[in-house]
Parts: sequence; structure tokens; C-alpha cells
Amino acid sequence: MLGAPNLERGTLMRDVSIIGIGQTQVAEHWDHSLRHLAADAILAAMKDAGLETADALYVGNMLSGPLTGQEHLGALVADFAGLRGIEAVKVEAACASGAAALRLGYAAVAGGLHDVVIVSGVEKMTDTANAETTTGLMMAADADYESIHGLTFVSLNALLMRRYMYEYGVKHEDFAHFTVNAHRNALDNPNAMFRRPVTAEQFARARMIADPINLLDSSGIGDGAAAVVLCPTSVAAEYGNGQAVRIRASAMATDAVAVHDRPDPLWLSAAEASAFRAYRQAGVGPRDIDLFELHDAFTIMAALSLEAAGFAERGKGVQLAQAGEIRREGRIPVCTMGGLKARGHPVGATGIYQAVEVVQQLRGEAGANQIPNARLAMTQNIGGSGATVVTHIFEAKD
Amino acid sequence: MLGAPNLERGTLMRDVSIIGIGQTQVAEHWDHSLRHLAADAILAAMKDAGLETADALYVGNMLSGPLTGQEHLGALVADFAGLRGIEAVKVEAACASGAAALRLGYAAVAGGLHDVVIVSGVEKMTDTANAETTTGLMMAADADYESIHGLTFVSLNALLMRRYMYEYGVKHEDFAHFTVNAHRNALDNPNAMFRRPVTAEQFARARMIADPINLLDSSGIGDGAAAVVLCPTSVAAEYGNGQAVRIRASAMATDAVAVHDRPDPLWLSAAEASAFRAYRQAGVGPRDIDLFELHDAFTIMAALSLEAAGFAERGKGVQLAQAGEIRREGRIPVCTMGGLKARGHPVGATGIYQAVEVVQQLRGEAGANQIPNARLAMTQNIGGSGATVVTHIFEAKD
Repeated sequence: MLGAPNLERGTLMRDVSIIGIGQTQVAEHWDHSLRHLAADAILAAMKDAGLETADALYVGNMLSGPLTGQEHLGALVADFAGLRGIEAVKVEAACASGAAALRLGYAAVAGGLHDVVIVSGVEKMTDTANAETTTGLMMAADADYESIHGLTFVSLNALLMRRYMYEYGVKHEDFAHFTVNAHRNALDNPNAMFRRPVTAEQFARARMIADPINLLDSSGIGDGAAAVVLCPTSVAAEYGNGQAVRIRASAMATDAVAVHDRPDPLWLSAAEASAFRAYRQAGVGPRDIDLFELHDAFTIMAALSLEAAGFAERGKGVQLAQAGEIRREGRIPVCTMGGLKARGHPVGATGIYQAVEVVQQLRGEAGANQIPNARLAMTQNIGGSGATVVTHIFEAKD
Repeated sequence: MLGAPNLERGTLMRDVSIIGIGQTQVAEHWDHSLRHLAADAILAAMKDAGLETADALYVGNMLSGPLTGQEHLGALVADFAGLRGIEAVKVEAACASGAAALRLGYAAVAGGLHDVVIVSGVEKMTDTANAETTTGLMMAADADYESIHGLTFVSLNALLMRRYMYEYGVKHEDFAHFTVNAHRNALDNPNAMFRRPVTAEQFARARMIADPINLLDSSGIGDGAAAVVLCPTSVAAEYGNGQAVRIRASAMATDAVAVHDRPDPLWLSAAEASAFRAYRQAGVGPRDIDLFELHDAFTIMAALSLEAAGFAERGKGVQLAQAGEIRREGRIPVCTMGGLKARGHPVGATGIYQAVEVVQQLRGEAGANQIPNARLAMTQNIGGSGATVVTHIFEAKD
């Protein structure tokens, strides 16, 4: 077998920073179309960066075709945001579309293809014209071997959660800590979809969706857009508020899309691979991370992510939450602005919301949710039930 | 206004070559699913390169979600092609999805992110489960301002063709030369969808689709997949048959998606911008190009492309065809393996078919269709009716 050449790739690459961020509230935006949402986020990010132009735009989006009858978002969004003519393309990796676009934007700047790149994530999930949203979301799973049996995306995660409870002796009520934490953190985030606290009692009483997943295990889908502006770190201080945040690592890995094709459905091997690849690139480990924006599409995903990324032993992710270690005061705060659960989950946009929120934290602009002395933050955006996982590590300006 | 920083981008980038190619026939593959088609092309390209692994896979595809209920093609196709775990993502830019993916793959290798990247384009347009194909194709246009009026993608092009005929005094029969040339060239291409000659008389008698566009003005949509393997030129000679083809230039530009938003609908400004950016990168001009795989989705698009890319004066693209200059013996051969018209147009795959065919020509493996002494070849892949245009220039090994 011939392997890949060993060229010490990466040795010529430039260090990359985020110099601008923008976001819309996650909500049911009945009065805003997809292009309006994207342009709002992009223009806010460009204003934040102090730039009125860019070399390229990468748009993370999953469902614009099936839900709104509109593909070709690169050119469409670039034009509507006042950037007609620039290089622009849509990137899709199911619910990890946002972070996948960020990774390609990072690569373009790091590799020297472009100097200034805007990466936006956008999703329009209400007021849709074509397919029904539940049908659309299932396009993240395997159409020929999973969807065909009538599974929905919630029921796929329900199978994982049931197995997790069986294998590790965890009770459903134990998952409440993820939801309580996320909703507490969303209270002071003006861009969050659900700005109200949830108690463990409310969690226990919530309406069942797909046993054992109930309404409060599930993130809220919605409409939203977020955007970041990237440039080489060497010139980043000239832009924005001078508080550029470095991208210390970017990594992406995949797995079988169909859950039954994985040797161990309770181990997110792509999450492990991308997280540890990112740790290596940054020269850090889980203990060095000050906050972790994980992909809590369902509470079970939060537990599995904590384990795969090395913050908890296998089967102990829920215990970490129970011990209060995921709270803002804990060892590894997660969902510090509400997470997917309470900030909301506009699927293709979520990865960019995570990046924007981490920049808020590392700039010290997270208000009541500020993690004191946050220096190093990690995001992990998951596509499907773990088939595509993108991890980034960010560092505050010295 | 703050502009982009001037960092002499590109000076550190590596030269990139194509070391493997693969393709399926374009056809109605009722017995092959999307993942089968993609894997067939990828495995053929890897075999051609003599490689059994890669760092990443970029999949160009437009309509898998709307037509087959399957998004998340990066992970899905990687797994099915035996590459489970590698970085993989889907890239979408309407009918330019294939070349957009190629550009991102090129950037990843040139910039040093990866050493070996596979880029595949795939589209499954028959045996579809969800939206109807005509509805799907219209997702390349503006849903809110074009599709909503009931326009189809053919009728949009028909408006352009009618205006072209009016402005430049061209008759419909004059466009026949594009179709006759494409079908002649497909005769000896075993992967072409339509391997039969078409005469000017047949063209004139063909069934009307959307006046003035008739059946033989229109490319045939179909199922198909193509793939290329990229690596740095510095090691390319170690792989494949030693006949690696260099990517001398890669460029992408956009325009308004809605045709009525463009100041001059008969001028493809994104095609001009991307072509001339590519010429600059390669240090060549239109006269240096030995063959041009253009995007003849409709005959009108072939004419407009020749003009925008500098091969014909404005309004003279049809005359170039009439004069025989686009034939294999002419000044600028186009559609040398059949083009979109006769090889077939599996939309998201087309850009990679163009690259594969150009590699066949530059390696001297084009059989009866070989352009003698071909050294420099150009491809141009168009998304929508000119809103995204990606141009690449390729060079044969010395």
C-alpha cells in the first residue's frame, strides 16, 4: 500500500485570528428571510472588524434547498450582503456545516489563498416552503439505511440515550443538569432563543418526544445567522477592537453516518479524533481548556462529547454534569451562552454561533456569563449523530 | 474604508498537480445509488494515482438533499469509498459545485493543510425520492425573485437566448454548431451519455422546450460521478503513471443570482472575472489555451462563455462556432469529450468531469478525440445562469 507523502505539511501556514463577529438572535424570524438573516450577521461582523470588503465568503448551511427551495447560497448571500462578485461558496456537513465552513475559511487564510475571509452560518427553519423540517433534519442520517425505516433524528438519538442509560446505569433525571445549566446561561444572552430558567422538576415533567428523549432534552431549532471575519494574526491588531482571538487549532474527522455501522455507538470516535488532533495542533490538553462550547443537540450528545473529548471517563459524562463541573463556576464550563439547548440550534449556523460566543468570552465581552480569566476555549460542532465532528481551539490575545 | 491587508498572499503556496482521475459513465443509473457512483469514481481515481489513502475528501454536489433525501455526503461518501474517518465535506455552488470543490481541494494542498486530497463530484438525478428534478434545478436561481414567478431553469436561459438573438441578429439555427460539435466529440467517449451524431437538420427540427431553447440546445441531465486526486507537484512524479497534470491557475467569482439584477444580462461578468484572474495567475492569455472545456448547459451559455473568457468579441461567440473554430481542428476546441450537451450534465459532478477530461487530453489519453500537442487547457464551470463561475487552467507535464 502506498501511503500519503510526508511533506511536513502545515509548516508554511500562517497563524489566523478572528477580527470580527456578528449574530442575529435565534428565533422564529417570520419576518426575515434566509438572505436577510445572513446579511445581518455578516454586516455586523464586518462592522465589528472595521472592514468593508473581503476576499471570500464561505457559508455554512444544511437545509436551504430542502426547506426553502434555495441552493446557491454563496453567490446569493454575498450579493445581498453587498459583496457581489467575491468568491463565495456553500459548505454542508449536516449540523456541523458551520464549523466545516469555518475550517475551510481558516485553511484559506492560513494557507495563503486569501487574506480576509468571512465565514457565515445560516439556517431558516420556520416559514419554509418545501420539505417538512423533521424530514429535512433526517437528511443528516443515512437515507438508505436509517431514514427508510421511519426513524427521525430525535428517535436515533433516543436509541443512543436508552443504550447509554442501560450500559452505565444512568437515570433519565440525571441528564437534567445539562438542561438546567444551558437555560441558566441563556438568561443573560440577548441572542438566545429561550431566556427562561428550567428546573430539574420541569425537566422531569416535560412532554415525551421519543422515549427517553423529552422536550427538555432537545435543543430548540430556529432561524438564525452568525458570522466571523478571519485574517492573518500578523495584521489582526490593525482591525476591530484590537482584541483579535487566535485560532490555535482546527480539526475535522468523520465516522460512519449510520449508527449501526459503528463498532461502538456510544463512543464518538470522530469527536475523539478531531478533539485530540486539535489538542496536538495547539500543544494543549483537556486540562488547559477554560470553556467548551459543545454540541448539546440532545442531552445525550453533551454527555458523549464530554467523554470523547477527554473531559470525562467513558460513561461518566453525566456525572461530570451532576457534580456541577459544567457550570460557569466548574472545572469545564459548557454552553456558557446557552448552548444549542437554550441559545437555539439553527443547524447550519450553530458552529458559527459557537465560535462567536467563544470570541465574546475570550474578549471579556460575555457580560454576566463571563468566565473569569478565560484564555483558551474549545468548540465542537457535530454533524449527524457523530458522523462529522469539527473541533476548534481559540486563544485570547496576550 | 479599510481595505483588505496586502500580504502578498499566495507567495508561500505549493504547486499542485492531479495524479489520478476516475469517472463513471453519465447515464440513467437506475441500479446505482449516489454513494455507489461516487465510490466507483473515487476508487478509480485512487487506483489511477496508486494511492490507497488520502488526507481529505471534498464532494461537489448540488441536489442530494432535495432529490434523494440525503445530505451529509462528505462523511457518507468517504465511508462508502473505504475512507472512513478522514476529513470530508460537501461543497455546493449550484451547477458549479464540482469546480468549487476542486478549488477548495486545490487550496488545501497548495496552502499546506493537506498533502493528498480527493475531490469528487457526484449527482443522482434519476430514481429520485423527494423533489422533482425541474424544481431542484431551479434552486440554482433566486427562489424569492425568480422561481416564485414560475420560471424554470430552461426558461431563464430561454430569455437570455431570445435577447441575444435580438441584440446581435443571430438566428436560432446558428446555434446548431455547438450541438453538432459536442455530439461529434461524444461519439468516441465511452463515458458520454449520448454517443450519436446530431446534424444541423436534426437540431432545427428538435422539439421545443422553452422557446427559443429546443431539446438539442439543452444538455442532458443524468447520474454520474467523477473524481481527481491532488498532491503537491514536488512529489507528483512518484504517483500514478508519472504523467501528473499541473493546476496552473484556480479562480472563482460570483455575480447576482437573479438575472434581472445584473446591469447587462448578456455579459457573464463572473465568467470574465474568474477567467482573467486565472490567466493572470498562470501568466497566459486566451491565445495560449489549447482547449477549453466550457459550460454548455445550453447553447446560449456556450456562446456567452466564449465571449466572457476572451475567445470571441462580444456578440461573436456564435460566429466562432459557425467558423468551425470550436472543433477539434479549430483555434479553440471546446467540449472535446462531448461537453455538457453530449457527455451529459450531472450538475454537481460536471466540474470534475471537465477536469478529468482535460487531464485525459493533457496526458495524451483522449483517444480519437485527442487534441494534438495539447499543453495548456482551461475549464470553466458555471453555477446558475452565471452567478458562480470557477475557472481552472491545467498544464501537461514537460
